[in-house]
Amino acid sequence: MKPHAEILTVGSLAFDSIRSPAGEAERILGGSGNYFSLAASFFAKIQLVGIVGNDFPSDHLKHLGTRGIDTAGVQIVKDGKTFHWAGEYNENLNEAKTLSTSLNVFEHFNPKLTTAQKSVPNLFLANIDPILQESLLDQATDPRWVACDTMNFWISGKRAELDRVLKRVDLLSINEGEAYLLSKKKTLIQAARAIQAMGPRVVVIKRGEYGASLFVDQDIFLAPAYPVDHVIDPTGAGDSFAGAMMGYLAEAGVDRKLLKEDPKKFFSLIKRAVIAGCAMASFTVEDFGLGRLMKITKDEVVHRQSRLLEMVTL
Amino acid sequence: MKPHAEILTVGSLAFDSIRSPAGEAERILGGSGNYFSLAASFFAKIQLVGIVGNDFPSDHLKHLGTRGIDTAGVQIVKDGKTFHWAGEYNENLNEAKTLSTSLNVFEHFNPKLTTAQKSVPNLFLANIDPILQESLLDQATDPRWVACDTMNFWISGKRAELDRVLKRVDLLSINEGEAYLLSKKKTLIQAARAIQAMGPRVVVIKRGEYGASLFVDQDIFLAPAYPVDHVIDPTGAGDSFAGAMMGYLAEAGVDRKLLKEDPKKFFSLIKRAVIAGCAMASFTVEDFGLGRLMKITKDEVVHRQSRLLEMVTL
Repeated sequence: MKPHAEILTVGSLAFDSIRSPAGEAERILGGSGNYFSLAASFFAKIQLVGIVGNDFPSDHLKHLGTRGIDTAGVQIVKDGKTFHWAGEYNENLNEAKTLSTSLNVFEHFNPKLTTAQKSVPNLFLANIDPILQESLLDQATDPRWVACDTMNFWISGKRAELDRVLKRVDLLSINEGEAYLLSKKKTLIQAARAIQAMGPRVVVIKRGEYGASLFVDQDIFLAPAYPVDHVIDPTGAGDSFAGAMMGYLAEAGVDRKLLKEDPKKFFSLIKRAVIAGCAMASFTVEDFGLGRLMKITKDEVVHRQSRLLEMVTL
Repeated sequence: MKPHAEILTVGSLAFDSIRSPAGEAERILGGSGNYFSLAASFFAKIQLVGIVGNDFPSDHLKHLGTRGIDTAGVQIVKDGKTFHWAGEYNENLNEAKTLSTSLNVFEHFNPKLTTAQKSVPNLFLANIDPILQESLLDQATDPRWVACDTMNFWISGKRAELDRVLKRVDLLSINEGEAYLLSKKKTLIQAARAIQAMGPRVVVIKRGEYGASLFVDQDIFLAPAYPVDHVIDPTGAGDSFAGAMMGYLAEAGVDRKLLKEDPKKFFSLIKRAVIAGCAMASFTVEDFGLGRLMKITKDEVVHRQSRLLEMVTL
């Protein structure tokens, strides 16, 4: 793997309890850090930073290790309990309804990066408290490419902090509904333009079954979702989308410098990264939790990516 | 306009009463024949075959004439009433709920083509009784390209007749839900493959806000919808999609022979035709009924088509 193909990500490791029209699953492994890392690991080396309680299975951390994910940055709190999220999906699979959130050890999470972690070239700040996102940006030593995600909870609750973060990131990856909330606009293109004005030159709006829409400066690319036979559980689709997209970019050596110096090449590569994201997300939704992501092979990933590319090539 | 760029279409001319989340409209002009012809008229010369009552505004037929649509085939029943459809849309704008249907003059519609009409090279049989579709196929003299649409009412009620029609068409343009009903399959690709096995080598599945999916033999193309600011009324989106797609194909001289002799060139052209369809449908939904289609200019059509093409080009 190339030296630039390394990503540091900070996100949650969680137990999820999920109900969907396809059934339900109790206390299965999840969390943005998990989904992102597993997806990205097909393309890049990952430094995962997070926090879990003593109830978190050490086997799982070992498994992540076998996938080239360094979990040295995952703090294990001996007398703590792991973050737990319960949610459900109704007919509209694009939107989760949160039933309960127990932050547990996540409540006092305040990651300190090691010297090695600080110099990782690519940074993905998953959907966590913007105060933590900001602290990580302060700790990182001049990253070449920074992306983040966020959600309604922070948009409504910590807007000033989030605004500061947005000024410092290259790319925001966000759900469509949250893009409207953040931008106070009602349509896709208007929302993207308003968010770009807040900082990130690149905005990716994740639209569930509609695919994803990419905005780079004035350019737009509309990527469709990969046509999945049966959606079982949409949880983690957005994080694994981001994982594959960021992994693809890292592997291809795409960064802020390329965007500045060769925007045409940048746009061409990031469109393919978005397709890689759509392909990956389509695996995630095919089973509950991490089920599918833990089983797929690089060959399957490459094959579905090429399939989707074929299906969108004019 | 080139001589091959002529399409004969048979469809309804109607009054529609529509309720959508954006408001309501009472007894406005509509019908598949209207939507299809207006959309196709930007690309080709149209022979419109249909039937209306004496309550139908003659001004409208004159307007169609100014758009290169020959309405000599529209029969006016002196003591009859025009077809009337009433429907509503709820939050899911992809699906209309029919409130009432009054066939009126349409009930005894049995079109006889003139010698000139019989030899029109391209044929579009809009969503009408498969018995009529069959009769038109019998009357036509060796058309170069035949497409049709259908709906749940005929799929459930006149399946044997519909099956005979499907064996004789090159392309079926159909809504996603109806594709599942027709194929008895539950997923997009499976449905398309099953329908292709019924006859048409080309299947276009219209997916509302998700865009349209094109199947040509083993090849697939996924086209996204054009991102519209506000959907006012989805009525006629599918028919105007088909109109622009068929118009584009006719103008480009695409036919069964090309599909046979140069499938690669055929696929390349029909993908662009589907993009033209998506762009046209996006105009239709921006106002009630034919409102927007009656006002747009060729420049606007070309511009939006290029915009969408740009947004899907890798």
